[in-house]
Amino acid sequence: MIIVMRPGAKQSSIDAVIKEIKSNGLDVHLSKGKEVTIIGVVGDKTKLASVNLMSSGDVEKIVEVTESYKLANKKFHPEPSIVPVGNTFIGPGYLTVISGPCAIENEEQMMSTAKGVKEAGATILRGGAYKPRTSPYSFQGLGEEGLKLLRAAGDEYDLPIECEVISRESIETAAKYVDMFQIGARNMQNFYLLKEVGKTNIPVFLKRGLSSTIDEWLNAAEYIMSEGNKNVVLCERGIRTFETATRNTLDIAAVPVLKSKTHLPVLVDPSHASGVREYIPALSKSAIAAGADGLMIEVHIDPSKALSDGPQSLNIPQFKELMKELEDYKKITGRK
Amino acid sequence: MIIVMRPGAKQSSIDAVIKEIKSNGLDVHLSKGKEVTIIGVVGDKTKLASVNLMSSGDVEKIVEVTESYKLANKKFHPEPSIVPVGNTFIGPGYLTVISGPCAIENEEQMMSTAKGVKEAGATILRGGAYKPRTSPYSFQGLGEEGLKLLRAAGDEYDLPIECEVISRESIETAAKYVDMFQIGARNMQNFYLLKEVGKTNIPVFLKRGLSSTIDEWLNAAEYIMSEGNKNVVLCERGIRTFETATRNTLDIAAVPVLKSKTHLPVLVDPSHASGVREYIPALSKSAIAAGADGLMIEVHIDPSKALSDGPQSLNIPQFKELMKELEDYKKITGRK
Amino acid sequence: MIIVMRPGAKQSSIDAVIKEIKSNGLDVHLSKGKEVTIIGVVGDKTKLASVNLMSSGDVEKIVEVTESYKLANKKFHPEPSIVPVGNTFIGPGYLTVISGPCAIENEEQMMSTAKGVKEAGATILRGGAYKPRTSPYSFQGLGEEGLKLLRAAGDEYDLPIECEVISRESIETAAKYVDMFQIGARNMQNFYLLKEVGKTNIPVFLKRGLSSTIDEWLNAAEYIMSEGNKNVVLCERGIRTFETATRNTLDIAAVPVLKSKTHLPVLVDPSHASGVREYIPALSKSAIAAGADGLMIEVHIDPSKALSDGPQSLNIPQFKELMKELEDYKKITGRK
Amino acid sequence: MIIVMRPGAKQSSIDAVIKEIKSNGLDVHLSKGKEVTIIGVVGDKTKLASVNLMSSGDVEKIVEVTESYKLANKKFHPEPSIVPVGNTFIGPGYLTVISGPCAIENEEQMMSTAKGVKEAGATILRGGAYKPRTSPYSFQGLGEEGLKLLRAAGDEYDLPIECEVISRESIETAAKYVDMFQIGARNMQNFYLLKEVGKTNIPVFLKRGLSSTIDEWLNAAEYIMSEGNKNVVLCERGIRTFETATRNTLDIAAVPVLKSKTHLPVLVDPSHASGVREYIPALSKSAIAAGADGLMIEVHIDPSKALSDGPQSLNIPQFKELMKELEDYKKITGRK
Repeated sequence: MIIVMRPGAKQSSIDAVIKEIKSNGLDVHLSKGKEVTIIGVVGDKTKLASVNLMSSGDVEKIVEVTESYKLANKKFHPEPSIVPVGNTFIGPGYLTVISGPCAIENEEQMMSTAKGVKEAGATILRGGAYKPRTSPYSFQGLGEEGLKLLRAAGDEYDLPIECEVISRESIETAAKYVDMFQIGARNMQNFYLLKEVGKTNIPVFLKRGLSSTIDEWLNAAEYIMSEGNKNVVLCERGIRTFETATRNTLDIAAVPVLKSKTHLPVLVDPSHASGVREYIPALSKSAIAAGADGLMIEVHIDPSKALSDGPQSLNIPQFKELMKELEDYKKITGRK
Repeated sequence: MIIVMRPGAKQSSIDAVIKEIKSNGLDVHLSKGKEVTIIGVVGDKTKLASVNLMSSGDVEKIVEVTESYKLANKKFHPEPSIVPVGNTFIGPGYLTVISGPCAIENEEQMMSTAKGVKEAGATILRGGAYKPRTSPYSFQGLGEEGLKLLRAAGDEYDLPIECEVISRESIETAAKYVDMFQIGARNMQNFYLLKEVGKTNIPVFLKRGLSSTIDEWLNAAEYIMSEGNKNVVLCERGIRTFETATRNTLDIAAVPVLKSKTHLPVLVDPSHASGVREYIPALSKSAIAAGADGLMIEVHIDPSKALSDGPQSLNIPQFKELMKELEDYKKITGRK
Repeated sequence: MIIVMRPGAKQSSIDAVIKEIKSNGLDVHLSKGKEVTIIGVVGDKTKLASVNLMSSGDVEKIVEVTESYKLANKKFHPEPSIVPVGNTFIGPGYLTVISGPCAIENEEQMMSTAKGVKEAGATILRGGAYKPRTSPYSFQGLGEEGLKLLRAAGDEYDLPIECEVISRESIETAAKYVDMFQIGARNMQNFYLLKEVGKTNIPVFLKRGLSSTIDEWLNAAEYIMSEGNKNVVLCERGIRTFETATRNTLDIAAVPVLKSKTHLPVLVDPSHASGVREYIPALSKSAIAAGADGLMIEVHIDPSKALSDGPQSLNIPQFKELMKELEDYKKITGRK
Repeated sequence: MIIVMRPGAKQSSIDAVIKEIKSNGLDVHLSKGKEVTIIGVVGDKTKLASVNLMSSGDVEKIVEVTESYKLANKKFHPEPSIVPVGNTFIGPGYLTVISGPCAIENEEQMMSTAKGVKEAGATILRGGAYKPRTSPYSFQGLGEEGLKLLRAAGDEYDLPIECEVISRESIETAAKYVDMFQIGARNMQNFYLLKEVGKTNIPVFLKRGLSSTIDEWLNAAEYIMSEGNKNVVLCERGIRTFETATRNTLDIAAVPVLKSKTHLPVLVDPSHASGVREYIPALSKSAIAAGADGLMIEVHIDPSKALSDGPQSLNIPQFKELMKELEDYKKITGRK
């Protein structure tokens, strides 16, 4: 941590900052330039977490030079993590494909979907039982009834399952059925929820918030991990920008950035990122090429009848076609 | 709702869309241009909420021409709402000033702050007992102990109190103490939480999400109102943009936009919007001039010792000075 | 300037950076922490402009602690500047109102507009003769013929005039007619154009780019000033964000931020910022309350017939009404 | 074009809009719903370009259903275009790699670079002679002297060359040397400049503006094409968002979006998009996988001595290594 003082800062202000740092058991390195004085903090800066150095009017800015996340940080855990989910693994060497409908609707839908995506090569089955929707008048999900349908379909076709959770109650219920929890984009900084899933030992699929920085995202993972649950998988799903040709803007660079900052696996969700079916194949390939450990792709047996997110869902034949196209990419990137 | 078909859409696609609409008890108006065919939907489009018209490949786009929020909509409730909070009111004719520290720290802090802000003219006392922080290693709030300190300070100085809630448990606890709940920016689309506060009869102070559109914000208010709680107050607190000179970008135009779209009161929070103490006076004045019903301003008895958000907090003398400067603006905009 | 080395940076990399700095006639202050080494640069860092310290793999980041603009910087010119334009002045103590149509269309339009805005209290007349339009098929302006109409109307009603320029040719032509040049948002980083207007002695009205930071904006002003022309006026006109309820997002905080960083006058353009006529009065008041030195407001004698930007233009009676409403704000902020 | 009237619009307003449309030689389709009336415009809407329908207070919004660009539009030119540049081609079947330094510095640099990138497999040599820099005190380029060095290097190693132009003067000079002009991101809406390159018959490499929508970008291409020059190549180079981990955010979805909207070739510039050398290989692969027709990659013989953009430049061995890694992607996507 570096404290940059304003030009012409009073010596008393500089002394006060130094005193504050030292009183927290840390040391300083002082650098006096012609225009500005800079104070470098030496030692474990988490000791300064609740100290407010900037409120002195003479401090111009504080520059962080180390990240506030530790457990998620590659610096302290250089080996990439592999997260086990049911009968499969997410991480280097694998190409995970999580597939299924946005919302669980009925038994026939889930069974047909599970059959179709299994045949196509998907490794995990997804389905939403608790749907966060912008309007309170949109379909909100089947709840526990949906989880039962999802579990049955997963069992029938030997696929681990995952479902979004939105509250402590839904965590408790879903824990009885699923192999992986999902934290949705709108809840990425619902710190209460992060801590609750952190107290379980079920892997967590953590989607990036619509306007969250990569740094905030890794701090969200840290919330889960600091409660004891180390099985976190990150999912880039597009960020909010001014561009309206796609529903969100897929931040493809997040893949190599994360690979340089964290040991956690990284997936990409081209369905939510684009919101448009015809762009999904191109984005899926680009994600694998960029080094993602897998994909989440929405599939519906009949998108025109989907209760949610129809326009961005592939049907089973389209999904099979895409999976075939991905074979070449799997091969040249060395995945199972 | 208008459905725009792609150029060269097949007649069978057009017929299918029309059939789908009619089977939901709605009527259509067909408009065939040289390049495109347009289908207007006549009737209550909420009937179409779970129908997926866009998944047909021949639909180019769907244009909403009416808003999905009803209870928050000025069209159906043209008179501005006035929300009672303890011994005061928020809405036209009033200038609400909510003031207090980011985080409740101890009794002395709360009593001194309450005394100071009351003398300066604040109408509601705030303080955080449950703090959502980016890093799990930052101070997370005192919980119920904090609420007791806040209540005592409010009682001593005859100020209604408000506090952020973050979970069902915190709602249940806070309901015993506070006059108004706050839903923070990071939870604006935590629909589970919105419904929970909607089931109470305690007024809700709903901050705008960091990257939420005004339309999404009003739908979030609708979640609360559709559960029965009509006492919602909106608070613009800055949105996330590329600009880094301020912590967020205060969207001052949100004030007149909201005034044209909803009957709910609108406040502005210049402290979080700017993140910089010296910009708060200018932004406070601009908010009142733009027509806001009030302000939320962070005040700390000693910002340099604040456990959270020190750099953007005013001390008591600065706050008193600001309140004096606002007198002229109060007068020319006709507030009590 | 501070150079932060990566954790575990080799001593040879550190030495190389230090050597590079010293070979440019500057000095360093070295600060070695447990995790990172920090190198502070002492002296005039513009000497380092063309040196590339970061390309060493062992440099983590470079933090600027001083701004790259000098002539526009308040630190070196603490007194606010007052810019003379024809028979009026822009700066502290004045409330400038620049008014007129987006595009100059014909004599009758310009004469009526000039008469109307003069009566209402505008201080400068504007009109576009060279229109940058998104589509090549939209109206592109009347060129020199338009400038003649603008000059005649300004002369008739004793109003200084200003017009956007877009090329060296248009600068040469406009220089014969106008009292102030305008550089539009899309050209804010057209550095060639900035230098060209910098070589004249005609005041320049510099609009902020759609996605330009305040720092980039002040550097754009520096381009003009470094060529010799010190009469620059800044105009905040909204930035591009995800919000679509308004055409752009008025960054009202830019006003106090600029007032703390530069001595140049600052105006606000609520017409382009919102794109919606009904929001203009609220935004105009908020701009004055925030400390802006004036406003640019689009006025058209018959907005429904405007060749450009009709929806955001006020007609003469609306403009007169607004100017009357602004009287109170003028008074309490002490402007002539 | 669809005109949506406000709820409760007066019949006289509706009639006025219809009359205005018809007086321009177009026809309407009227659709009266319970809440809103919708007017569809039938015929060539460019006839309405200078008519202002929205200024009537009773018009809620106007929805464009056809694009304003024609020559760049895939609808009217379904076959993908192939643009010849010197001895090579850009478009389907080819994998173009444009390479070279940000700024031309001296003969030795250009000759070594040309030799290195040619050996690695680059197809076009780039170099900046006119540099748009944020600060006026940064290196601004060698001008014509630089163009001579670039031409000589291209001739020696049989590589076509391209260089950014920033003014009419630079176009005139560069026309004597280069095989392709570049319009930089900051000039994407410098419509004057677009028209000037449109009047030549030299291919134009059009970079996307930092905050330009895809629609605005295609309209910028239309400016060039409408002057007669059909040889336009688009280059996605990252857009400005809130994320700071990379210099810009590469909008990878722009590739499939453009492929669905235009027949023009699309390249990707991972160097400017990320600003960080280590992310360039991942982004290059993802661009090819997404369907881009090629890449622009900054290469410098000694990035640590580069006068501009060093941190994002590859050196020759890194570039050769990357080109080798791209071979697999070239093969599976069927490029020469």
